[in-house]
Amino acid sequence: MVPVYPPAAKALRIIVGVKVSEIGEFGLIERLAAKLAQPPGEDVIVGIGDDAAVWRAGDRAIMATTDTLVEGVHFLPSVAPRDVGWKSLAVNVSDIAAMGGRPMFALVTLALPPDAGMEAVEEMYGGLLRCADAYGVEVVGGDVVSAPQVSITVALMGEAVVRTGEPLLLRRDAARPGDVIAVTGTLGGSSGGLRRLQDGASTDEPLARMHLQPRPPLETAAVAIEAGIICAIDVSDGLLQDIGHICKMSDVSAVVRSNDLPLNPDLRKAYPDDALRLAVSGGEDYELVLVGTRERIDKLEDSISVPLTSIGEVRPRADERVTLVDEDGAVLTTPDGGWDHLRE
Amino acid sequence: MVPVYPPAAKALRIIVGVKVSEIGEFGLIERLAAKLAQPPGEDVIVGIGDDAAVWRAGDRAIMATTDTLVEGVHFLPSVAPRDVGWKSLAVNVSDIAAMGGRPMFALVTLALPPDAGMEAVEEMYGGLLRCADAYGVEVVGGDVVSAPQVSITVALMGEAVVRTGEPLLLRRDAARPGDVIAVTGTLGGSSGGLRRLQDGASTDEPLARMHLQPRPPLETAAVAIEAGIICAIDVSDGLLQDIGHICKMSDVSAVVRSNDLPLNPDLRKAYPDDALRLAVSGGEDYELVLVGTRERIDKLEDSISVPLTSIGEVRPRADERVTLVDEDGAVLTTPDGGWDHLRE
Repeated sequence: MVPVYPPAAKALRIIVGVKVSEIGEFGLIERLAAKLAQPPGEDVIVGIGDDAAVWRAGDRAIMATTDTLVEGVHFLPSVAPRDVGWKSLAVNVSDIAAMGGRPMFALVTLALPPDAGMEAVEEMYGGLLRCADAYGVEVVGGDVVSAPQVSITVALMGEAVVRTGEPLLLRRDAARPGDVIAVTGTLGGSSGGLRRLQDGASTDEPLARMHLQPRPPLETAAVAIEAGIICAIDVSDGLLQDIGHICKMSDVSAVVRSNDLPLNPDLRKAYPDDALRLAVSGGEDYELVLVGTRERIDKLEDSISVPLTSIGEVRPRADERVTLVDEDGAVLTTPDGGWDHLRE
Repeated sequence: MVPVYPPAAKALRIIVGVKVSEIGEFGLIERLAAKLAQPPGEDVIVGIGDDAAVWRAGDRAIMATTDTLVEGVHFLPSVAPRDVGWKSLAVNVSDIAAMGGRPMFALVTLALPPDAGMEAVEEMYGGLLRCADAYGVEVVGGDVVSAPQVSITVALMGEAVVRTGEPLLLRRDAARPGDVIAVTGTLGGSSGGLRRLQDGASTDEPLARMHLQPRPPLETAAVAIEAGIICAIDVSDGLLQDIGHICKMSDVSAVVRSNDLPLNPDLRKAYPDDALRLAVSGGEDYELVLVGTRERIDKLEDSISVPLTSIGEVRPRADERVTLVDEDGAVLTTPDGGWDHLRE
């Protein structure tokens, strides 16, 4: 049953002033965040602006994040439902990993058109549950609503490690000049996989799997916490843009060495001319950017099995937040920074 | 950037087997819930199937729920954005109230078309924040995504009162034969208001406000907990359908006396012939149905200022879960049970 009543003066589709597309995703979030109470409540440890929110509950530190995948924006109706389901939870696990927490409980909201196929919906949910199993997450609730497009929203709650009363966190605002910037795994696989899929490749191709079934390095985040690392972000918007978020929140700048970037080998083979661009701006790799002293990054590298590559360093605040340099230290023309779904 | 790749065998829009509209919202939720691990993890106190999920975190009991409003389904583009914002949080507060908890932290996801007006989006967020202020909720994060329709999803977290190590909760599965069924406030105001709006009435009309700006009786829920009440649900799908949820979860039946229902006085005036039907099946009043022994319901009534009306009683399990009777005890033809957005 659809409510029908007279139009409001400032209805969402009757434009007064600027459109959200002129402001973009990050501008919009900034304007909305400015409306929130400052400072945050006393139990809030991390509010809006990081990968997840964190607050105290007794002697625990609860963590929560949410992410949505929308048909036609984040995936097309043609994608396999099980892959949509997996990814919808995996992107949230990535946010919890980027804060150094443990994901535990999920609420899952399915928005479905009435003509969606039940078998496909169950397959999508099954894909989500396989990801939940892989990361030790339990689905405890959610919502099902009718909508013209399929979308899936996951709210994921977890906890931070608490040591002598204080939560150990990986934050965006904890980078200091002199710190080393390192990244887990390889870069550009997701956007390379997307390109391959657009070129008609099978969804079973290794590069395509990087796009369809991201596997955030949750255990590495836990080891990083124990190694004394306190600054991180996940690679979602695009490597340079994500490092830019750290620089902004930490009031520093960064230099990234293009030669040291661990480009995905399949990406190099498939798109040799575009590999660097995709690796620095493609996004959605859901690897971890970890920032810390040389000593701590080295210590971490020694204690994990996944590749960890130093790719740059933190510098004092500068006009250019993130600079990409070649092997001679010459500044490369910065490719477009990354994704901003709302901006046209 | 929209991913484009080959169609999957069981894509969501390529129907294999039945459509979700043939199964309906509740059938779908049942089928998905059946896929979850049983029994739930040891820290889970209440999993899927109640108004909110509850789990242990140290000596606290954390509560979480989520609800979505979709343009064209739950509201039209013509509704005032501030009212959409208010309601998006209020319906979640209602879920936490129906569990006897205190709402504390919210994640807000806005899905916006690129041509949405920035001023309207800020007004919508402002409406949500006014509701947050009214109920002591702090927004700590969220997501902004591009989508063809406006929708707003709130995940709301809170805590239950814990007494000697055990959380005090209002559950759907705790009704016992002999219990009294009572309801707060008045009924049918929301669906009466919707009807008035559809007839062209001003959004400032009192009945219209009942639909546009629900005010869940959060404090009453807290008093009910202290009065020893352990069973409740909020009036969202429709009174009889909501009482049906309690009966199903508690394995009991219920008799509701039509003569005792506290019909909204403005509703009686506006739609005298339809008032009863709207009150029992219209839904969205976001009042509380409280179920408990006569003694406890009386004790609660004495300690709150909002109206609490006894409207029926719990009976042993029977074929007909919920029966509506007139003043002579004759069974009224049961009107259609309530809302099911997915079913056609």
